[in-house]
Amino acid sequence: MERLDKQMEFILEADKEKNIMRQTYIADGSRKENDAEHSWHLALMCYLLAEHANEPIDVARTMAMVLMHDIIEIDAGDTYAYDSAGNDTKRERELKAAERIFHLLPEDQAADVRGLWDEFEEGKTPEARFANTLDKVQPLLLNDRSGGESWREHGVSQEQVIRRNARTPEGSQKLWEYCLPLIAKNVKEGNLKP
Amino acid sequence: MERLDKQMEFILEADKEKNIMRQTYIADGSRKENDAEHSWHLALMCYLLAEHANEPIDVARTMAMVLMHDIIEIDAGDTYAYDSAGNDTKRERELKAAERIFHLLPEDQAADVRGLWDEFEEGKTPEARFANTLDKVQPLLLNDRSGGESWREHGVSQEQVIRRNARTPEGSQKLWEYCLPLIAKNVKEGNLKP
Repeated sequence: MERLDKQMEFILEADKEKNIMRQTYIADGSRKENDAEHSWHLALMCYLLAEHANEPIDVARTMAMVLMHDIIEIDAGDTYAYDSAGNDTKRERELKAAERIFHLLPEDQAADVRGLWDEFEEGKTPEARFANTLDKVQPLLLNDRSGGESWREHGVSQEQVIRRNARTPEGSQKLWEYCLPLIAKNVKEGNLKP
Repeated sequence: MERLDKQMEFILEADKEKNIMRQTYIADGSRKENDAEHSWHLALMCYLLAEHANEPIDVARTMAMVLMHDIIEIDAGDTYAYDSAGNDTKRERELKAAERIFHLLPEDQAADVRGLWDEFEEGKTPEARFANTLDKVQPLLLNDRSGGESWREHGVSQEQVIRRNARTPEGSQKLWEYCLPLIAKNVKEGNLKP
């Protein structure tokens, strides 16, 4: 049973993602969302929006990638997109987390899941580019739908959002074009600084 | 943009799953989990445990199935496994919900996702059998890890758990055998009535 025991330990460790809070509010604005909810939402979006990727993608691989992409935050915590001090140490904290968490799995699966995470982080394959695009588009959709509360809370500017999304069109030009009017609308409504 | 607008409406409607609460506690026992977290956990388990399915499965299809399987609960609510009155009306409530929710999507995707849900409900394909097994094994793992709080809260008996899991071995004999000692342990600890 050793293999299955290891798999189950990883699965129960991953449960901690349900307690890692993000800065984005859920669509009804009632509270912030956590990493598990966010990852589920990305996987659902991946399945439904894959046709809008710039290049053909392996949907299964991309779903697995987004399901796993935040597991390192169990140790490293969520680093808010516009927290520049936090982002300076993010990579180091996440690499250390990856060493511990993925190695709860049997060796072959540890290597596989680490591979998915590295691929996501590097953002060089069509799958990783689309996964990263979803990871940016989902909070944008939620920020817009929840009335921009998270943007206002952190005094975020339009320029910061545009800079943060510099690579978003690389995964899907179409999804980025969907977001542009949402950004403009939130500037107009005073949720994003001009 | 009509097609993408419809997809986005469905994706934002699905966000409501983050507010549909289940009776199962997360592993640390601090609070109950919601449908979005549960569905993410099942998809992760599907990716990692597919090798233990009784028959070979299409992992991508099974992941999509578990990601979507509880969306009807946005309208129909979560029906607790051991609520017999609720279970009498469950099917009717869920069918009505399916009619509304899946049809937010473009027609081809509405039919596809409805197909995934029907397949899950019927439980006749290897993918649906494994998905249903995961849907039973995950709360069992969480109940055990969180000290059986949900079972004690509802006065659940060993016999009820065994009856509820009558079809669990059909998806994976191996995962069911992993659960049996957990059930026995929780009877011994007084979390499940003998």
